[in-house]
Amino acid sequence: MKTIVIQGLGEMGGSLAAALYHQHHIIGVDQNTDIINEACAKQIIHEGTTNLSAVAGKADVIILATPVSVILSTIKTLGQLVLKDDVIITDAGSTKQSIFEQAKITFDQQYITFIGGHAMAGTQNSGLDAVNPTLYQGVPYFLIPIDKQSKQNVPELKQILQSIGANFTEIDTQQHDDLMAMISDVPHIAAFALVNAAVKQLGDAQVFGQYVAGGFKDTTRIAGSNAKVWTDILLSNQDSIVDSLHVYTEALKEIEIALTNGNRLELEALLSRAQDSRQHLGEKA
Amino acid sequence: MKTIVIQGLGEMGGSLAAALYHQHHIIGVDQNTDIINEACAKQIIHEGTTNLSAVAGKADVIILATPVSVILSTIKTLGQLVLKDDVIITDAGSTKQSIFEQAKITFDQQYITFIGGHAMAGTQNSGLDAVNPTLYQGVPYFLIPIDKQSKQNVPELKQILQSIGANFTEIDTQQHDDLMAMISDVPHIAAFALVNAAVKQLGDAQVFGQYVAGGFKDTTRIAGSNAKVWTDILLSNQDSIVDSLHVYTEALKEIEIALTNGNRLELEALLSRAQDSRQHLGEKA
Repeated sequence: MKTIVIQGLGEMGGSLAAALYHQHHIIGVDQNTDIINEACAKQIIHEGTTNLSAVAGKADVIILATPVSVILSTIKTLGQLVLKDDVIITDAGSTKQSIFEQAKITFDQQYITFIGGHAMAGTQNSGLDAVNPTLYQGVPYFLIPIDKQSKQNVPELKQILQSIGANFTEIDTQQHDDLMAMISDVPHIAAFALVNAAVKQLGDAQVFGQYVAGGFKDTTRIAGSNAKVWTDILLSNQDSIVDSLHVYTEALKEIEIALTNGNRLELEALLSRAQDSRQHLGEKA
Repeated sequence: MKTIVIQGLGEMGGSLAAALYHQHHIIGVDQNTDIINEACAKQIIHEGTTNLSAVAGKADVIILATPVSVILSTIKTLGQLVLKDDVIITDAGSTKQSIFEQAKITFDQQYITFIGGHAMAGTQNSGLDAVNPTLYQGVPYFLIPIDKQSKQNVPELKQILQSIGANFTEIDTQQHDDLMAMISDVPHIAAFALVNAAVKQLGDAQVFGQYVAGGFKDTTRIAGSNAKVWTDILLSNQDSIVDSLHVYTEALKEIEIALTNGNRLELEALLSRAQDSRQHLGEKA
């Protein structure tokens, strides 16, 4: 049994606490004492405080599950404290680049291990009401070491977090950024752009939207995502996104050329390749 | 009560028959006598035949619900027959351009009224087992006149088909092609291209697919559509698609430029516009 300090008891942090509650001693940190009291009453945490500094020294693992801006200042704070020798700090921040940079600056010359965390989980909901102990079950969960020492401790962190039921995968920061660009960021851009193009071509979405079928709706569903959040996410992964976006526009161009030339064979080959890949997406080979 | 002849008792034609069965006298035409017998037994049609020519002269409405190639030859056949003076012929073909061309050639100098039909309905299923009398309930259903006489008869056809419960909208052929390009064809191309780009960038979809979340899956769902069918659909609406595809690639470029310049204000404005339109898609203004 380890002592795990979790800062931020929203959907991500609270669900981690709930899923780890029966294996470990969970200390919740939140700025709101009502939330701490409620989380104790609901058996999501064993104890709680508004003051991270008062409990950080007891922690085997510290999980930072607040907005990114708070994670950045918390990392600086943690750099000033005396922590356990073998402490592991990880995060659940929605963007990674600035967190990794700050962690490298703060912890590089120290004994402290920082491992980035990124679960492909989460809903549109937020706060303690969104807490769900099975949120991470079967979900891809990336562990992203930022240096050699951090890499050595990935198996230990996996072991400690085992009971959340996620599919942990170790991945380096560049691989992580490239993967997210292609499977998450570019699809969002594709969806946002498709809605903007349809409005430009057809006018008010309230009107043409009456005629759309499931295909348009599915393809653009994530265009309904929060624009402010996604502006932050996209700006934090600029380089990888621009690369992946070029691969995407080339793939569009290939189809356009085959179509313009009336090249049935080539067009069907391009569509078949996509159909086949989509139908076997994520199936074990 | 009218006499309605429906050729093709698959999902589209059979569901029309079933939805019209209690208001009209339905004669089913299919090349397979087993299907005719089954459709009679299931009270989808009142009578059936394999020979359209034997029953076409009785029809007030003839609905062509076979594959496009069969519709084209059936139109030629109908041009040779003696039909009722006020007969209305309509179709449920998956692509329109060649059908409209053939209908204009065959019926232009005749008394016969042809009105194109395009319901935004249908599933992945086919055949008599897919027949569903509520398939058209609340579904957008375009009626597409090809000449003045045809335009005059749209209200009459609406009236006759009323009991299927669809939302009928009259639209001209060019509007129809442009609308389909933007709300159906380009979304399919966007999805096919996104899968091809992801495979090019990340390798086998069976592997990277393990890491994707709902966003990628939704955005690419229609890339799993039949490549052969979509090759035909895209080639039959080339001009409108190329126009709409340019509007789409411009919308992508706008986002890319804002991102590359780190222009947060502009990027958030573009994403907000899409978010807002997507959230109000098809809502009555």
